[in-house]
Amino acid sequence: MRPLPAAERPRPVPLTAVSVDDGFWNDRLATNRERSIEHQYDRLGERCLPNFRRVRDGRSGGFQGMCFEDSDAYKWLEAASYVLATDDDPDLRERVDEVIALVAAAQDDDGYLNTYHQLAFDDRRWTNVRNLHELYCAGHLIEAAVAHYRATDEESLLSVATAFADHIDDVFGTDEDDLHAAPGHEEIELALVKLSRVTGEVRYLDLARYFVDARGTTDRFDWETDHSEEIAGGEWWHTTDDYDPTYTQVHAPVREQDAVEGHAVRAMYLYCGVADVAGATGDEELFETLVDLWHNMTERRMYVTGGIGSTADGERFTEDYDLPHRSAYAETCAAVGSVFWNRRLFELTGEGRFYDTLERALYNGALAGVSLDGAEFFYENPLESLGHHHREGWFACACCPPNLARLLASLGEYVYATTDEAAYVNLYVGSEAEVTLSGEDVTLTQRTDYPWGGSTTVEVGTDAPVEATLHLRVPEWCADPELAVNGDPIETGVGEGEHEDGYLTVERTWHDGDRVELAFDLPVRWVAAHPDAPDPAGRLAFQRGPLVYCVEETDLDAAPSRLRVDPESPVEPRRDEDLLDGVVALDGEARLVDADGWEGRLYGEWDERERRGQGTETVQFTAFPYYGWDNREDGRMAVWFPVE
Amino acid sequence: MRPLPAAERPRPVPLTAVSVDDGFWNDRLATNRERSIEHQYDRLGERCLPNFRRVRDGRSGGFQGMCFEDSDAYKWLEAASYVLATDDDPDLRERVDEVIALVAAAQDDDGYLNTYHQLAFDDRRWTNVRNLHELYCAGHLIEAAVAHYRATDEESLLSVATAFADHIDDVFGTDEDDLHAAPGHEEIELALVKLSRVTGEVRYLDLARYFVDARGTTDRFDWETDHSEEIAGGEWWHTTDDYDPTYTQVHAPVREQDAVEGHAVRAMYLYCGVADVAGATGDEELFETLVDLWHNMTERRMYVTGGIGSTADGERFTEDYDLPHRSAYAETCAAVGSVFWNRRLFELTGEGRFYDTLERALYNGALAGVSLDGAEFFYENPLESLGHHHREGWFACACCPPNLARLLASLGEYVYATTDEAAYVNLYVGSEAEVTLSGEDVTLTQRTDYPWGGSTTVEVGTDAPVEATLHLRVPEWCADPELAVNGDPIETGVGEGEHEDGYLTVERTWHDGDRVELAFDLPVRWVAAHPDAPDPAGRLAFQRGPLVYCVEETDLDAAPSRLRVDPESPVEPRRDEDLLDGVVALDGEARLVDADGWEGRLYGEWDERERRGQGTETVQFTAFPYYGWDNREDGRMAVWFPVE
Repeated sequence: MRPLPAAERPRPVPLTAVSVDDGFWNDRLATNRERSIEHQYDRLGERCLPNFRRVRDGRSGGFQGMCFEDSDAYKWLEAASYVLATDDDPDLRERVDEVIALVAAAQDDDGYLNTYHQLAFDDRRWTNVRNLHELYCAGHLIEAAVAHYRATDEESLLSVATAFADHIDDVFGTDEDDLHAAPGHEEIELALVKLSRVTGEVRYLDLARYFVDARGTTDRFDWETDHSEEIAGGEWWHTTDDYDPTYTQVHAPVREQDAVEGHAVRAMYLYCGVADVAGATGDEELFETLVDLWHNMTERRMYVTGGIGSTADGERFTEDYDLPHRSAYAETCAAVGSVFWNRRLFELTGEGRFYDTLERALYNGALAGVSLDGAEFFYENPLESLGHHHREGWFACACCPPNLARLLASLGEYVYATTDEAAYVNLYVGSEAEVTLSGEDVTLTQRTDYPWGGSTTVEVGTDAPVEATLHLRVPEWCADPELAVNGDPIETGVGEGEHEDGYLTVERTWHDGDRVELAFDLPVRWVAAHPDAPDPAGRLAFQRGPLVYCVEETDLDAAPSRLRVDPESPVEPRRDEDLLDGVVALDGEARLVDADGWEGRLYGEWDERERRGQGTETVQFTAFPYYGWDNREDGRMAVWFPVE
Repeated sequence: MRPLPAAERPRPVPLTAVSVDDGFWNDRLATNRERSIEHQYDRLGERCLPNFRRVRDGRSGGFQGMCFEDSDAYKWLEAASYVLATDDDPDLRERVDEVIALVAAAQDDDGYLNTYHQLAFDDRRWTNVRNLHELYCAGHLIEAAVAHYRATDEESLLSVATAFADHIDDVFGTDEDDLHAAPGHEEIELALVKLSRVTGEVRYLDLARYFVDARGTTDRFDWETDHSEEIAGGEWWHTTDDYDPTYTQVHAPVREQDAVEGHAVRAMYLYCGVADVAGATGDEELFETLVDLWHNMTERRMYVTGGIGSTADGERFTEDYDLPHRSAYAETCAAVGSVFWNRRLFELTGEGRFYDTLERALYNGALAGVSLDGAEFFYENPLESLGHHHREGWFACACCPPNLARLLASLGEYVYATTDEAAYVNLYVGSEAEVTLSGEDVTLTQRTDYPWGGSTTVEVGTDAPVEATLHLRVPEWCADPELAVNGDPIETGVGEGEHEDGYLTVERTWHDGDRVELAFDLPVRWVAAHPDAPDPAGRLAFQRGPLVYCVEETDLDAAPSRLRVDPESPVEPRRDEDLLDGVVALDGEARLVDADGWEGRLYGEWDERERRGQGTETVQFTAFPYYGWDNREDGRMAVWFPVE
């Protein structure tokens, strides 16, 4: 498998050219803008911005928070910039400008910027690349700067970012005087490629490629460990020698890695950077590495929610088929990272399967990360709860809330992509996009009831007839798409070879007002997992459209673990406007095991009663989309149910 | 529920009065003596004994190992003493005497003995009672001393222990000059009661009671945290202020605790000490606390193997019904601790249910802790493996191997108990015991094929006729015991009230050569768990007699997670002399889900094929006792299987 030639690759339609107006997303995006991003700004004032102020004011010491606390400001700036790209919000713009001014004021003359080091260890920059996140924070600064520049055309933050990037370019490399190292937490790689694109500077791309190639091929981490006492006196230094190199993906050169390993967020950011470098340089070996890693993740190490990273111990990938429900870590940031990575794989290949994985993570593992009111957040996203896992207002390590905020604020950029003569509709999200096809300005107006229904129309607006191709994504589970153009049905089919790479394709000369109608069913699906995965073995989950469903104790009045489902028993979707701000719930019948005879014991003989249907009763149950769990009263929750 | 009056309580028959000669246990006990205890002695020479030598030689610094490294020597001395109680082994006796001489030489003039402090922080004794295990090590010293004294009648180690206990008695208490604190790791409590019994000194019992009552009622841990900088300069001090008090069971006064919480080994040792204090003082409130805790553990927080402590994070209890198979911590030490605690509950009540729990832990969760060859050990005992969990030769924290060694070496003491006029047969283990009943010396000779079969004879040897009662334990799963005395059947029955407190009781005048024959079936049992426990929901495990069974990949040639069992399909026991040193294996038929159609995907539609029996094939499977897993080639293992 090879990436598409550069000229044929779909490019995202920028956020400034897309406006979302969608039944499902409007509320979520408004909440993100009005609550989450506000809430996060307030939190910045507590620990993060004071660090920048201390540096600006020339003070030393007094750093507060995690060593990567700066990145909270950058992720907030990035999210806020995405909002500014589409919404004129003078108040927000003012605050963004204030934070940018503060960040700029904290930058050293040589371009260096990291308040943790500046306040505490300014003489020991770059001496703990393994743990201290200087390059990680730099990457987030760059991402924020690119987002801000794209949204506003202003260079106030971009100039800070390029100065720091230039400094990093001076420090790192393979020359004798250079520091030769890869960062302990990836992020700088993908950021440098963005910076290269927006500035046109090839140096930044070269530096990104350098960091990718340095990974697993330098002994700098060993040097840091060996010199930790000498440099740090043991005081704050964390480079112990029992370090597991898979944690930071330095266990092998990137090109030799074939399984997703280590800290899941680090892994996702690395693979994003690798994809960007592979795309920009045409490096097919790197691309093939990514394809191997993608197969390993999606076929062995990913939850049905798209969540990744099975264990809290290292927030990391573990081993093939290790997917426990209840102790699932499935960090919100990691699902967000999977969205980032899969979008890049689509952009290299034009293949819909990457958007299938993206969509799974977006609507489930990532979206569950924030409460419906936008003020509480999950860091971990288990697929089962005994009733004591709840969202929190903030975290000591506050990576997830702003990460999800920047994804949601940039949702518009995920909907469409274009080549010179084709447009891809990747997500079914009501929206209007301004694109250029075959040299003509074209407006695509999408109306849809997705993810609750499967009716979508895309109307083309153009001043002149335009010859172009429209690619409409057919989700992996969709068996029956019906397509019509201006009311005339078009023969489709999803059998082998009947639609290409996950898309229905319409190639024609488009006139103003042409209207494509896509319709498909969203049947309730009983989902099973590969039989070698022990936890879902003998169990089924419900999915409808892109949404994974769950059952909460509050609806069942019993532990969901007591349900025994029968895939031959009908489960019916039902629109419920009152439930969780409006969802399509699933109503079904199942057997519920009673606890008669279980008083005072935990283990006992298999009861023939259960086999004969005694000891169980038939109950009605209601399932609802997983993203909405833990928004009502406390109680147990489950996604996977034993088959009766 | 109340404890029995002191005079009616069964007392253990001491190890010196019991000789085991048993088809199941002989090999395990010989391996324990000849391999495990030898292996552990060799390991003592690496880190543990050198610490004692440095103290003996008046040196400072250079401590090696964990802060509780001393306890390895004590647990080894205890295990070796149990061997000496029944086996005349001059080589072992010589080594025991050498180690005792070394320990004695390391003791300070004031009785204090802890090489970690003596070498590194001799001026800071008792300033980190929360973390630094001085009292824990003292407890193991005392247990070893009592075992050695009972085995040899020598006071060489006992005098060291009493000197240290006296010192502790001087230091701790509620007087103004006393240090008022409970230990961060319990163990001293149960040890002091043992010491009190063997020396007749009530002071030691009072001190044990003091430590129980101090638990959760002093603020010493807070004081240590507040003063850590001042005392320790932050250098080696671990008393952070984010400490979870449930970890050490100080979250509430002991009398107010009603759920098993925190570090599982700590909890077991505490409850042992509480049982001992409650028994010795007649404190019914403490006893009732234990009954509540026991119900919580056995009905909500214990694996089917008797393993306890669901998570590696804190090696601790978590919450009700949180019993994941694969990430089960179920530390070997904790199962051993459960054996200790349940024996004490039996001795307070004469009730067989405590021995049921003891037997479950002994034959499964504890016995799995050592390989068949006696040289490799499990610290964690999961109930499912993806193929990468293996026993190891030793551990940095080497608590488990010697803990299991001391249990196995003292097995003989678990078989019988007596009151003045009654004997209890608690474990079916071939053995001969010398007991006193109604003032007469009586020999009980037990022959049994347990746990493989259910035929047991107990022959009475006596010089004169003796009026006495024999209590024969009826395991909780045993439905059909048949009893005969000298060939004459005795009416039995296990319905309500038909046997008392888990025992069949024969009250008569016994003559020399009288012979009791007990017979019961060991059917293969399909075991289910309480429906509120999510992990075993919809699954069954196999048990036969006291043994929990498992399936390994090597026998199935597929992942055990692919099995779908049918409880109506016969599963037959089969004696296999070649398998794992000889076991009764279980042969059955089940469906095996194939992976056809699953290539390249992890999740997919529920396949109707599976429902119709296509997509699965009927296979023969072999299950074998859980204790024997990971003794052959690597591969996956499971205990719980989805029902077809």
